[in-house]
Amino acid sequence: MSELRKDFLSERWVIISTERGKRPTDFKVEKTKRKGGFCPFDPGNEKYVPPEIYAVRKPGSAPNDPNWELRVVPNKFPALGIEGELGKRGIGMYDMMNGIGAHEVIIETPNHDETIDTMPLHRVKNIVIAYKERIADLHKDRRMKYVLVFKNFGALAGASLEHSHSQLIALPILPKRVSENLKGTERYFGYRDRCPMCDMLQQELYSQERIVEENDSFVSLCPFASRFPFEMQIIPREHQTHYEQQDEKTYDDFAKILKSTIKRLSKALDNPPYNLVLQNAPFTEKCDEYYHWFLEIMPRLTRIAGFEWGSGFYINPTPPEEAAKFLKNLTIDQEEL
Amino acid sequence: MSELRKDFLSERWVIISTERGKRPTDFKVEKTKRKGGFCPFDPGNEKYVPPEIYAVRKPGSAPNDPNWELRVVPNKFPALGIEGELGKRGIGMYDMMNGIGAHEVIIETPNHDETIDTMPLHRVKNIVIAYKERIADLHKDRRMKYVLVFKNFGALAGASLEHSHSQLIALPILPKRVSENLKGTERYFGYRDRCPMCDMLQQELYSQERIVEENDSFVSLCPFASRFPFEMQIIPREHQTHYEQQDEKTYDDFAKILKSTIKRLSKALDNPPYNLVLQNAPFTEKCDEYYHWFLEIMPRLTRIAGFEWGSGFYINPTPPEEAAKFLKNLTIDQEEL
Repeated sequence: MSELRKDFLSERWVIISTERGKRPTDFKVEKTKRKGGFCPFDPGNEKYVPPEIYAVRKPGSAPNDPNWELRVVPNKFPALGIEGELGKRGIGMYDMMNGIGAHEVIIETPNHDETIDTMPLHRVKNIVIAYKERIADLHKDRRMKYVLVFKNFGALAGASLEHSHSQLIALPILPKRVSENLKGTERYFGYRDRCPMCDMLQQELYSQERIVEENDSFVSLCPFASRFPFEMQIIPREHQTHYEQQDEKTYDDFAKILKSTIKRLSKALDNPPYNLVLQNAPFTEKCDEYYHWFLEIMPRLTRIAGFEWGSGFYINPTPPEEAAKFLKNLTIDQEEL
Repeated sequence: MSELRKDFLSERWVIISTERGKRPTDFKVEKTKRKGGFCPFDPGNEKYVPPEIYAVRKPGSAPNDPNWELRVVPNKFPALGIEGELGKRGIGMYDMMNGIGAHEVIIETPNHDETIDTMPLHRVKNIVIAYKERIADLHKDRRMKYVLVFKNFGALAGASLEHSHSQLIALPILPKRVSENLKGTERYFGYRDRCPMCDMLQQELYSQERIVEENDSFVSLCPFASRFPFEMQIIPREHQTHYEQQDEKTYDDFAKILKSTIKRLSKALDNPPYNLVLQNAPFTEKCDEYYHWFLEIMPRLTRIAGFEWGSGFYINPTPPEEAAKFLKNLTIDQEEL
């Protein structure tokens, strides 16, 4: 079983996979599986991955047969296991618990060559609904405090398989960033009695300097203190705390802006590797008045970020105003959306 | 002038370089300059970098002539500028200030082909003394709150030039990680009235499970909650708060363990890219009782870390006990040290 361990300085928790420990030689040349090779996510290869937990299927098709549009399966090499007790304990001054949690893969499309920016819109909608359904389902497990939904696109962003997919990890602890966002938003709310993200949206929509795109329900923008060149956020216009509790129109509009924003990124930077992280509110905290969910989009451009892991300090060579202007002014073919 | 901007959620400050804004095309294939090409850090090419601030030179040689052993020069493309006022201000709800600070390069050796693990020990000593001297000197500038000393080795770790060098950035704010370490250590001290790092060392030296190497003044180990495979820390045995205030014997021993620890890393993982970050105490905080400086060594292994930037959550596939055992048991030729 893997372990969750707490860093006593920063109060950061880390998953340590004690079973599949990597030896030095395991780190030589790991690449995303290339086109033409075998892909376990392709239709017909269902038996190479664990049985599905959730799927969008053609009417009349059976679980795990090849007639699917989207599948959610457990990760074949999970970082955390779903069975067992948390077993919180100390080793001398250290804090740890068992690696209990869920690690799932959302296989976003049956078509190996499609990506979020090129697949039909109804498939993007399938993805955003799958996020919602899985978060709501994992919410029922009382041991879990958070479901971290993310996507690694491209080898440089950490994707080991090329076939378009997202992942989620359900955790018995809050990730550090979520705790920080909770503390930061609560402090602002305590001072001003307003949600900081709502205030920020109002200011950004007025100045328009960092706005990339808007639709009825969402705004995509480059944040004022962007850590990375072309970093973006997709933010609901209305105050919404929990991603998984929204109405149909919201998910429709989210799918639309997700597709077009990724298309802009892809066009601007020639299909760069990127990470998506859904910054959702935790199940377990009362934060409805001040937490406002959003999606974070982080392009992974060469040579950006080095010592940042050790310092928490970032140098961004591209002002977000320039990035936003560039992304906004790109011509996107409306027929492709 | 560049700007320092604060993220209102996480209270993280970011440097935004507004002048040398990178356009999308600037991100295509940036690589470390290869062997054989022109190197501005080689002796004889002094005119291609700004004039030196500090140097270890042969007796009788003049500043900026080629007879040097180590040089510190301003970064030719500094992230921050040394001239001007901080100009702290708000833009609506946002906080910012001018990008005031220093950005220097420590050219560690005149020999283009040497690295920390292969250069003679006296040159490693030059490096650790240069860190000390520059921190102490920049300390005199009252606008500065912290000097961040780091090294990017290898293109994947962010090095743009191959010639062995470190960098330092003097900042008018505390990097997030430093604030976190201060808070974490203060909390522990408040509860136990002891330095957490001193407690940790005692525990680690007793168990020996994660110890890599020891000498009179230092211990190198793989931390209990390592975020990355083969992550290490070099920690003074005695309680020391400020790196720059130690005695000669300490710097001698630091040079020795730095060289041998990097040699182990290099041997274990075939000369991997890595980042070093000196986790030193800030000038401006009274933290002598609980802050204990250390050096952080983070190997950059392929495909490790993806969504971690967005979540603050890490999955480490190599238990630190295994990494430490492997690194400790490597045979290091004593003649090379």
